[in-house]
Amino acid sequence: MAATSPAAVELAVKLVDGDKRALARAISLVENDDPMGWELVKEVFPRTGNAKVTGFTGPPGAGKSTLISALIKNLRARDETVAALSIDPSSPFTQGALLGDRIRLTEHFLDPGVFIRSMANRGALGGLSEATLQAVLLMDAAGRDNVLIETVGVGQAEVDVIDHADTIVLVLIPGSGDSVQALKAGVMEIPDVIVVNKADHPMTDTLVREIKGVLALGNPVDGWTPPVVQTQAAHGIGIEDLVAAIDQHRAHIIEQGTLQERRRRNLRHEVLELATISLRHEIEAVIAADPGAQELLDQVVERKLDPGSAAREILRRRADQT
Amino acid sequence: MAATSPAAVELAVKLVDGDKRALARAISLVENDDPMGWELVKEVFPRTGNAKVTGFTGPPGAGKSTLISALIKNLRARDETVAALSIDPSSPFTQGALLGDRIRLTEHFLDPGVFIRSMANRGALGGLSEATLQAVLLMDAAGRDNVLIETVGVGQAEVDVIDHADTIVLVLIPGSGDSVQALKAGVMEIPDVIVVNKADHPMTDTLVREIKGVLALGNPVDGWTPPVVQTQAAHGIGIEDLVAAIDQHRAHIIEQGTLQERRRRNLRHEVLELATISLRHEIEAVIAADPGAQELLDQVVERKLDPGSAAREILRRRADQT
Repeated sequence: MAATSPAAVELAVKLVDGDKRALARAISLVENDDPMGWELVKEVFPRTGNAKVTGFTGPPGAGKSTLISALIKNLRARDETVAALSIDPSSPFTQGALLGDRIRLTEHFLDPGVFIRSMANRGALGGLSEATLQAVLLMDAAGRDNVLIETVGVGQAEVDVIDHADTIVLVLIPGSGDSVQALKAGVMEIPDVIVVNKADHPMTDTLVREIKGVLALGNPVDGWTPPVVQTQAAHGIGIEDLVAAIDQHRAHIIEQGTLQERRRRNLRHEVLELATISLRHEIEAVIAADPGAQELLDQVVERKLDPGSAAREILRRRADQT
Repeated sequence: MAATSPAAVELAVKLVDGDKRALARAISLVENDDPMGWELVKEVFPRTGNAKVTGFTGPPGAGKSTLISALIKNLRARDETVAALSIDPSSPFTQGALLGDRIRLTEHFLDPGVFIRSMANRGALGGLSEATLQAVLLMDAAGRDNVLIETVGVGQAEVDVIDHADTIVLVLIPGSGDSVQALKAGVMEIPDVIVVNKADHPMTDTLVREIKGVLALGNPVDGWTPPVVQTQAAHGIGIEDLVAAIDQHRAHIIEQGTLQERRRRNLRHEVLELATISLRHEIEAVIAADPGAQELLDQVVERKLDPGSAAREILRRRADQT
């Protein structure tokens, strides 16, 4: 394997030392798929595995970023450091913040114990989940006690990004009928903690009852029944309960051994994903550079050659070239 | 390329002739990743491209299968043949049907002009989208005028399956707050037609107003503004309007040339996907058979080797072996 460049080593030293600017730079490198980003992760990887990683998912408008902001305040009061990563394109963290959020976030920006960062959606060709894991690893190596990931999800099971978290929190609000239906139908996986935010809404009790009804139908996974926590994030109400629920879940998965198992499975999965993405880029390059491959694609569009045969033929051409 | 086996040719002849049992058998072969399934698709592929393919997506409980059932009745009255494919694990088509649905579906089962089929979810390793396309191609080659695909979606953009449709219909019901938020936030792509089902609900007007508000914010794509159709599928109300909206969309995309463009893009994308999946299976096989690769994965779990380096090393080992 190639030796790590002096520049990467220097940045790695600063990052592990807790330098916020080094962390920001490192994440940009990873996000831009810069080779130095990969060198960095390689360098600091042995330092990872210590942060508590919590993922927040839920429909847009549920108040995830406000909740995370309130949670950060609480964790700072316990003198724990935090890094937050938003990959929700509809989040104020990502978009530049509404007035109210900006005020709340400014207070965090001035605190060296808080690092907030957003990442852009990479589109269908993938890689976002991989870039996210690399960013989480960098935050972890930077010695942050907590890493909080914000993502958007409205019921699909295939939200890979959230798999990098140890504890998954689903944030709903009164009116989240679709998400509850998705939970009920088994289309959405049951999270570890469920938050009903904006719990001053008159329909809160109905939503809580519906959620508990869904949870009562399923068997607890590894002996854990997800607690339903009511919050009013904008007023800091219920945040203590949320922190307690996350802590309890963590204690539970450590005791059961599922934390190690989950991380093990995710890391192995990640290696396979990275290898696949790399091969996919290779095939794309082959197609782009090879007029014969282009012609095969044209034949598919003209319905002269089926997609399966074209795929096999392109793989054969690639094998011949290497 | 290998010659097609006589058994595949025989099945292909029956399938193209419109034999429902041959079609059912062919889809099973594709679903089970049987090599004969691929042979079949190869054989009949030149016969495809004629069916009108419409995809239905939306949260569980929105009544998609009831709507499709009502639509089938309408299309049959126009003397058009139909094949419906459900890949929604929460659908009664997939699960075996509730009493009411079963009665409605039985009437279709006896009709040679209607073919209904469900496919199981293939899980995270993928392939469902590919199996779906193959099934759609088979239905198309079988001479069905219409292919209807039912899938579940609650706002994610990454519902690949639906990409195989020419026209995408999003089905919502009053209470679909999360989906509307997802549309508003740009997390969910704007579909071609929006149905508000169960439109006898008192909150219908509010939902329609919200949807139109969201649509008014965006620019029409290729000069098309999605119509919002109100239906009561269980009572057959509004189905004529839905058929008219789908027909209008089809006429529009043919006129604009976007139908050919969309199919062209999807077929090319499909070839790349099939090639990638094939390579991924190869890597999995390499890892499973190579103790050295297993050891690399163990080193990642022990945080001695980073995932990126492990992926590169596994690809190198694979290249050495071939």
